[in-house]
Amino acid sequence: MIRVSVVGAKGRMGSHVVEAVNGAEDMQLAFALDAGDDLSVITPGNTDVAVEFTVPSATLDNVLALIAQGVDVVVGTTGWTDERLDQIGVALAGAPRANQAVFIAPNFAISAVLADHFAKLAAPYFESAEVVELHHPNKVDAPSGTALHTAQAIAQARRDAGLAPVPDNTQTDGGSRGQVVDGIHVHAVRLRGLNAHEEVLMGNAGEQLTIRADSFDRISFMPGVLLAVRKLAEGGHAGLTVGLDRFLDL
Amino acid sequence: MIRVSVVGAKGRMGSHVVEAVNGAEDMQLAFALDAGDDLSVITPGNTDVAVEFTVPSATLDNVLALIAQGVDVVVGTTGWTDERLDQIGVALAGAPRANQAVFIAPNFAISAVLADHFAKLAAPYFESAEVVELHHPNKVDAPSGTALHTAQAIAQARRDAGLAPVPDNTQTDGGSRGQVVDGIHVHAVRLRGLNAHEEVLMGNAGEQLTIRADSFDRISFMPGVLLAVRKLAEGGHAGLTVGLDRFLDL
Amino acid sequence: MIRVSVVGAKGRMGSHVVEAVNGAEDMQLAFALDAGDDLSVITPGNTDVAVEFTVPSATLDNVLALIAQGVDVVVGTTGWTDERLDQIGVALAGAPRANQAVFIAPNFAISAVLADHFAKLAAPYFESAEVVELHHPNKVDAPSGTALHTAQAIAQARRDAGLAPVPDNTQTDGGSRGQVVDGIHVHAVRLRGLNAHEEVLMGNAGEQLTIRADSFDRISFMPGVLLAVRKLAEGGHAGLTVGLDRFLDL
Amino acid sequence: MIRVSVVGAKGRMGSHVVEAVNGAEDMQLAFALDAGDDLSVITPGNTDVAVEFTVPSATLDNVLALIAQGVDVVVGTTGWTDERLDQIGVALAGAPRANQAVFIAPNFAISAVLADHFAKLAAPYFESAEVVELHHPNKVDAPSGTALHTAQAIAQARRDAGLAPVPDNTQTDGGSRGQVVDGIHVHAVRLRGLNAHEEVLMGNAGEQLTIRADSFDRISFMPGVLLAVRKLAEGGHAGLTVGLDRFLDL
Repeated sequence: MIRVSVVGAKGRMGSHVVEAVNGAEDMQLAFALDAGDDLSVITPGNTDVAVEFTVPSATLDNVLALIAQGVDVVVGTTGWTDERLDQIGVALAGAPRANQAVFIAPNFAISAVLADHFAKLAAPYFESAEVVELHHPNKVDAPSGTALHTAQAIAQARRDAGLAPVPDNTQTDGGSRGQVVDGIHVHAVRLRGLNAHEEVLMGNAGEQLTIRADSFDRISFMPGVLLAVRKLAEGGHAGLTVGLDRFLDL
Repeated sequence: MIRVSVVGAKGRMGSHVVEAVNGAEDMQLAFALDAGDDLSVITPGNTDVAVEFTVPSATLDNVLALIAQGVDVVVGTTGWTDERLDQIGVALAGAPRANQAVFIAPNFAISAVLADHFAKLAAPYFESAEVVELHHPNKVDAPSGTALHTAQAIAQARRDAGLAPVPDNTQTDGGSRGQVVDGIHVHAVRLRGLNAHEEVLMGNAGEQLTIRADSFDRISFMPGVLLAVRKLAEGGHAGLTVGLDRFLDL
Repeated sequence: MIRVSVVGAKGRMGSHVVEAVNGAEDMQLAFALDAGDDLSVITPGNTDVAVEFTVPSATLDNVLALIAQGVDVVVGTTGWTDERLDQIGVALAGAPRANQAVFIAPNFAISAVLADHFAKLAAPYFESAEVVELHHPNKVDAPSGTALHTAQAIAQARRDAGLAPVPDNTQTDGGSRGQVVDGIHVHAVRLRGLNAHEEVLMGNAGEQLTIRADSFDRISFMPGVLLAVRKLAEGGHAGLTVGLDRFLDL
Repeated sequence: MIRVSVVGAKGRMGSHVVEAVNGAEDMQLAFALDAGDDLSVITPGNTDVAVEFTVPSATLDNVLALIAQGVDVVVGTTGWTDERLDQIGVALAGAPRANQAVFIAPNFAISAVLADHFAKLAAPYFESAEVVELHHPNKVDAPSGTALHTAQAIAQARRDAGLAPVPDNTQTDGGSRGQVVDGIHVHAVRLRGLNAHEEVLMGNAGEQLTIRADSFDRISFMPGVLLAVRKLAEGGHAGLTVGLDRFLDL
């Protein structure tokens, strides 16, 4: 049994993690802590992996504290800059336990991670590529961070393969062609009823490839979280690992 | 048998019309004329309906000539302004034959015409609506005329129903939200391999309606052309009629 | 203000109705009753429209009781046979209040009702038509009642238009072509993560029309329920009305 | 310049290959032969790679003849059994030129080959998976060979990962659930207007991944054919290679 402690257990994501851990046959819940609780109760003696889903302003301190106590951590909170990631690296280098591991992912939805990965693999083989992301209308940024990342990954793969720019004879446009990210057109749809969706379209003469990831509910992040917990628990991932694709067999 | 003459018979569309007429059990081809041929051979004595698919610079003169000879005309050439349509109306008022009819359609693809019509009908019942059109990358204008028309029709139907503007909390955007046409966001994708496609997305809390029209090939216009020919041949449509939706039982 | 009482207020659907009524600016909640509560408190003196969302075994008695008290009723419970509908008709004929109205709908999702309606309108204009429905894997029946209804409506519209059977040269098949309902092929997909979705595909040479309704959540039924409440409250719908399409302006 | 000879140059596929070779900046056409022509004119002295697109009854003899003349061959004709492939292997072992190569692919559409590959990679991470293929109604077999292959590949990947069977509580069904191939449900749609399309659907609680390949026209096979020609021309692929995925960098 993998003993899991959840930090941010009353939050929107954390409460799902508690449920998911309770529902997993190979896991048992150690501590479910939230803001104000003392993290120092979480130790290697009672916890194999801690899962941290709090807020950007609290996550760095939480993870550093857990490292100092010798606990492996799966982190789902966003807001990680290169500088913050460096601090985690330094802390791990001086961690009390050998082979200590921290895993951070900007997106735990397996479908989204796979779509991004497949887009990168497919990009060299198509003359055209565009990205359409669709979200609920309460989202404040457009396009989504995931769509930006996908467009940049496609652009990089095309450059590496020596492809010409995507063909586009548009001469008059009032903005319908979307935002051009690194040469790739990105479109953002906002629609009541939707949650978080991304569609990658690629085309050659006579053919099209479409890769679409739909996240209908944040419960979709749980298989990715449990996968990361299992990977850290089985060992062999000492140090800092970023991105769920690192734990998928692709 | 409906006797059909084709004007512009060697063009991309006209050659398909000739084939379609030859393949229709209830029609026979009278004349297949092209640039330089004398239109005056087409008369009520040999032709029930003429189909005109030429170029914007020639179409007005062709149609006026056919009206003067007493022939009903189905027109697929684009470029009709209100002023040009008025000239047709005047000519029909002084036409030699009673109940003479001219039919002009900007789009003969039944799927596109239906998608446009259904978008208008559905619009009053959804909080959100956006339009995505997708075309081959050689197209010079964006968005397509069809997408503009659909967006305007949706906007009008929403106004008539007293709906509030579509919800959109976007605060930062570099252009990914597309072109706003009459309050409706319109996105244009250009992809090698595609021909002409339109997708209308509507959403309420918990639900989405999608209406999509794909035109893979200009042969898709033929059922609409034959339908218009049959409608004029059966009579009862004297004067000028614009838009294939007028001939659909909706 | 429309005064609304909810019967089945603690059920999965009823609790959403209570919330929706509380959130509607033109409505106020009169009574929220559940199993065991006394329906006789609901009268024309305190309630304009009652909404009944209970279970098939209770709904007939509930609606008959509400009719006897002179209250208009919107019914969302399923399981209505022709015989049961007849009993409602008889009860309404002898109702205490003039112009009393009952509205029953098998599906309150506006997107699904519109998709069904549009499929019927489009059917005469396409050579091919198939229906694909997609649901969560806990559903016990396949295909869905909605898909069956859509296929039958398409088949009827094709017959009325004198269309030939859909083209299909399949000579060897181990079952992949799905269930043939009245000449129309129906396919049922069961996928974890989905809720209730239907896609209608129609095709002619060179073109395709796709109409898709997605219900992600039962909250999608609320706009339809509120619409029916408003229609009964404004009057003019005396007697029994079945089907939300009757209240849409199509 | 890669010197390319085409065998079956007047056929539906071969004529496209001739055009594609003529349009490629790094290739020049050596011979364009068809039924009745003498293959012995094609030699290493004038041809780097021969492309064979004929008919199943002729392809084996053609390829054996080309091997005997010391020419590398890209084969697009279908109908290859294990026994026929063995004959090619034997012939290559005794080929006149060192490092001689033959490449055979059942499908040259890059989008279809990638969809199949991505389906296999994604399969271990989803609770549910189904395959929907859509083709023109003149197709005689259902489901398509590609869909069968994809379903089998998904099933194998699920077994290798130790997954449980896909969840399905269906209790009553008249055939709508499709054909079960190795535990995976496969659905075949036949629609006028379509050509060859495949959609792979995978789902977990709260999320869906969709991978779709559309082949609108046989011209879509040309990038795959040219890719294979370039791979053989650059050397390093001695012997028999089967499947375009072997030449993609995945």
